[in-house]
Order: sequence, then structure tokens, then C-alpha cells
Amino acid sequence: MRAKDGAKRAPTESDVARLAGVSQSAVSRAYTPGASVAESTREKILKAARELGYHPNMMARTLATNRSNIVALAISYLDNPFYAQVVRELSEKLRETGRHILLFTTSPDGKADPALEDVLSYKVDALILTATTASHELAVQCQAAGVPIVQINRESKLPGISIVRGPNELAATKIAEFLHAGGHLRYAFIGGTVESGTSKVRENAFVGRLRELGVKDVLVAHGDYTFEGAAIVTRQLLSMAEPPDAIFCASDYMAFATLDVAKREFNLKVPDDLSVIGFDNVPAASRFAWDLTTYSQPAGLLVDAAIDIIDSMIARPGRRAQRREVQGELILRGSAKRPPASA
Amino acid sequence: MRAKDGAKRAPTESDVARLAGVSQSAVSRAYTPGASVAESTREKILKAARELGYHPNMMARTLATNRSNIVALAISYLDNPFYAQVVRELSEKLRETGRHILLFTTSPDGKADPALEDVLSYKVDALILTATTASHELAVQCQAAGVPIVQINRESKLPGISIVRGPNELAATKIAEFLHAGGHLRYAFIGGTVESGTSKVRENAFVGRLRELGVKDVLVAHGDYTFEGAAIVTRQLLSMAEPPDAIFCASDYMAFATLDVAKREFNLKVPDDLSVIGFDNVPAASRFAWDLTTYSQPAGLLVDAAIDIIDSMIARPGRRAQRREVQGELILRGSAKRPPASA
Repeated sequence: MRAKDGAKRAPTESDVARLAGVSQSAVSRAYTPGASVAESTREKILKAARELGYHPNMMARTLATNRSNIVALAISYLDNPFYAQVVRELSEKLRETGRHILLFTTSPDGKADPALEDVLSYKVDALILTATTASHELAVQCQAAGVPIVQINRESKLPGISIVRGPNELAATKIAEFLHAGGHLRYAFIGGTVESGTSKVRENAFVGRLRELGVKDVLVAHGDYTFEGAAIVTRQLLSMAEPPDAIFCASDYMAFATLDVAKREFNLKVPDDLSVIGFDNVPAASRFAWDLTTYSQPAGLLVDAAIDIIDSMIARPGRRAQRREVQGELILRGSAKRPPASA
Repeated sequence: MRAKDGAKRAPTESDVARLAGVSQSAVSRAYTPGASVAESTREKILKAARELGYHPNMMARTLATNRSNIVALAISYLDNPFYAQVVRELSEKLRETGRHILLFTTSPDGKADPALEDVLSYKVDALILTATTASHELAVQCQAAGVPIVQINRESKLPGISIVRGPNELAATKIAEFLHAGGHLRYAFIGGTVESGTSKVRENAFVGRLRELGVKDVLVAHGDYTFEGAAIVTRQLLSMAEPPDAIFCASDYMAFATLDVAKREFNLKVPDDLSVIGFDNVPAASRFAWDLTTYSQPAGLLVDAAIDIIDSMIARPGRRAQRREVQGELILRGSAKRPPASA
């Protein structure tokens, strides 16, 4: 398509309307999700659009409707299979309602994407954060702009931020009871980062329950939610004069590191010499190579809850931030000694 | 900020200019990457913007400049750690130039996101596909719109599509030679999908080189690039009267499935009873639990090449599609018998 001066110009809605023999508003409706237009009309319009090489301009549409159908996702630790699962579930489920993910990741040094502070420039409909937390300033800005924020698997005390999380306290309590019933002598907890509220909740519940059961000293270390970090602290723990014989890791991914170091470097038998329990139940945990006892935190349920919150807040702006907890269960596999009764 | 009628209105560039005591064009330049503006002026502007709650509207900017700084990424198999790595590398490297990823995934049934056909509506600067291929129609549309397409790790004969790939032929040839030198008797190849050109190239090179070395029959099966698919065909192969003692899998992820089935269900010793070699060298391949011999295909190099192609095509529209191959190497670990000399 060429304008009078010979320069190529992009085909417009009215070009499509003319070729299809319909009104311009029919073309507009054909590209608006949920808008009413007869199927035969829609087909005529799509055919004309294809012929002309016309594409509705979502950017212009966003300016008009103030909805972009884009949800921003800020994420850390994509090497952890749990978060890869969250991205997949979120992408698949948003697609069902014609929405897409604009991805923000943290830099290799762990700092949050500075561009995240500019997320509002993209007129996103909502912001989901997982394995990372929003700054105070971002929370305030999003609230002012009416853009809901949901954090998956990370606590926050900031105003206006909704939270979706796994059964952190219950899980850690049950894991403490299970390991104790298995007759272990020395316990350790490998948490995420020192600042992580999620990790702290799990630590407190684990250590607290063990104390109630008469275990005075529980070793606590931080693996920073990375494989390498967990490998380092596992090496330290297992090098002690009296090393732990039961380790609860705040994620499956860190538990894999613990198993790797215990078997490769310390030649330990699992679970005879050392029991290891993770958290998440990622698909790899069920592999024969890992056979990891863990507590499930279904990524699909977390994502469902997050989308549900977003949708309810978009439908009723001004609603208060919500907090939801999804259910999970202790998954018994071969990496931890079982109590005599359930053996 | 309230307009005269009391309704809240979004602050504009001129509001910021007024408060900062600068010209409106200075505000505009402050938000344009690469535009010249004194650091002290920029700081005054950002401070005023923060006070007013102003955000430059990237959507409006896109309409004006026809550049969105958004790159669309279409991806399959996010459960495969190799592709999670590609997403991470791509996101980190695009961020360095102020760009973001708009994510399109395939549906659980393996069909490409139908919305991908509408990717041009989002005025993306480029389209990268990995583990999935563009339709003919999409290729034609993108070419007409001047939007470069790069496929990572997937072949294509369509016009205008650039390709970045690993050393498929060389790798498969070397793997054939390595396994043959290891003195194996019966060989199998587990490919991806039947339609995958990448898988076919690896199969042909592997089978072809073995034939040259005097091996007449090589079993060929397809694991569809999934863990479950590879587990099923491994089960079939190992149930044969004369099962293979050497299996080359077209991805590490499928090789993990092969190892899992061989050890858990057939109680085989690796590599004494069975040698397994993968492709990719994902981080998990180096874990003690897998200890997988494989051929590396560095995700970082693939991503660098893809971004380089995009940038060169954006800088010089109309450039022809490019084909690049990155280098890798055979990584020797414990899952495959070594030839006597190199043992």
C-alpha cells in the first residue's frame, strides 16, 4: 500500500473496512476481545486484514482503553526449576484470557532490574513479583496508579501489596516432626537469603517445633536460594566435628546441592548417614537421581491465586490487598529416614 | 493532581517541566535513551517527576518513534532447563540496552500460541523463537513489516528467518566416534519430534558416521523433547531382546529421562551396562546425581548471536537473513564409557 507521494504507509482500520465492505466500527469491534460481531463479518474482516497486511495497533488501543493486556512479571532465580514452572504456568494461564507477560529479571549480581521502577511506563495491567520483592517506592507508585501488585512466595509488609504463598509454617512444623520421629540427632536448616521473610517463617517454625520436642540446638545457615550458595554451607556443615544428620533446605533446588555435596564430597549414604528434605516439589525432585522427600507448594495453585487477585482488583479498583495461602503436603521419598511406624 | 473539574488527571511532561524549571523538550530528552541532557538537569527532572507521580508513557512514545524496546520471545519446553537458561540470558542481555521481553509460550498440547500471529500488533522491535518455529504466514508478515525474526536452535527454510544454532553435525559426528571408540555394540538415537529439523540433522550425522565406521543398524526413536516422551521410548528400547548399550539423546533433558528409566526400572549400571550421552550441557548435567557426558551448546553464545543479528537488521533494514553456528565441545563425565586410550 502506497500513499500518494509513493512512500509506503501502513494500512489502517478504514482501509480494512473499505475492502471488507463493512463499517469502521465493525473492524474495531472485531479486534476487541469480548465485543459483539457476527462470525461471518469477523471472517470477512480478518480476510481483508490479511490481504492488506493490517495489524491492529495494540499500543494505540492501550492509549484509548488504558488496558494493555500485558502483565509485568518480575522474577529472580530462573535457574531454579520452581520459578521456571511459575513462568510457564503464568504464561499459559494469562494466554487463556488473551494476556501476555512482560518479563523483568534480576541482574546476575542479584540486584532487581532498575527498569522495574519504570514498569508503569508500559501501562501494564498488573505487576506480579516472584522470588523478589517490590521496593517501597514502587509499591506507592503502583497503588497511586491503580496497578495491583501481587508477590508470589515472598512476604511483604508494604501497603497495597497482595501476597500468595505456600503453607510455610505448617510445612516446616510437619517436617520438624517427621525428622524428629525418624530419630535424628543433629538438625540443620539451610535458608534462602538472610533478608527473606519466607525463609525466616520456615526457619522459625522448624526451629520452634524442634525446641518444643526437646531439641535445643538447631544449626542455621543461608544458601541464598542458589545452588552454589547451598553447596558452600553444606560443605561447612558436613565438615563440623559433629555434623548434622538431618538437613531441611528452604527449596528443592538448594536440597539438590546438599545431596550433591554429601554424596560426591563426603561419600555419605542418604538417608542412612544423612536425611535431606526440600521444599516445593519441583518435577526433578521425583527423579530417581534425586528421590527427594519434600513439601509440595504447587506452582499452578500459586499462579491461579495470583491471577484471581489481579482480576478482582482490576474489576473493583480500590479493593484492599489480599493474602492467600495454598495447600501442599509432605511428599515421602527416599532422601529422608522414615519414622519406624511409617517405614 | 486534579484538573479544574476535580477529576484526577495524570501529570504530563509539561507539568514536570514547569516544576523542574526546564523546557518540555529537556524532559522529553531525559527519558530518551542516548539523548543528550546535563546530569544536573536530568536529576532535577527525575525529582520533579517523582514528586508529581509522572511516568513517561512508553506506549505513546512507541507510536511516535515506532520502536517499543520490546522483543517478543516465543518459547516451548520451559520445563527443559536449557530453555530456562535461554530466557534468563536473553532477559539479562536485552536489559543492558534497556529492552524487555514479551513472552509467548506454547500451549500444554504443544500448539504454538495463536496470539503469536498477532505479535505485530504489539509493535515489537524483533521476534526471537526458540524450540519452536514460525509459520510461513508469520514469516511473510514480519518481513513485510520489517520486523526481524531469529530462530534459536531450530532450522527453517522460510524466507527472511535468521538462524542461530549449535554445532549439530560436528557434535553428533564426534559423539558417534567417541561411543564407537568406547567399544559399544548396539547404538540408539533418541531424537526430539519427528518434524524437528535440528533433531534430524543430529540423527543423520550420528547414524551416518556410525555407518562409515561399520555399524549397520542404529535404532532411532523420538522422545518429543519431553522427559515423559524420552522415558517411554527408553523403556521400549531397553525392553528389546538385544537392547542398546549406547544411547545418544538429542537433549540433556531427555538424557536425564533415559538415565532415570535405566537405573530405576532396569537396574542398569551406567556406564558399565549402558552409556548415555546428551546434548546442551545444562548446569544440571554436571551434578553428581546425573554426571552426564554431553556436548555443550552454550546458551549465552546462542543468545549473543541472536541479539547481534537483530541489532544489525534493525540498523540496516532489508539486510538478508543470517545463519550462525556457535561452537561447543564434548564434555567428558561419567555416563559414557571412555575409549581405552583416554580412560
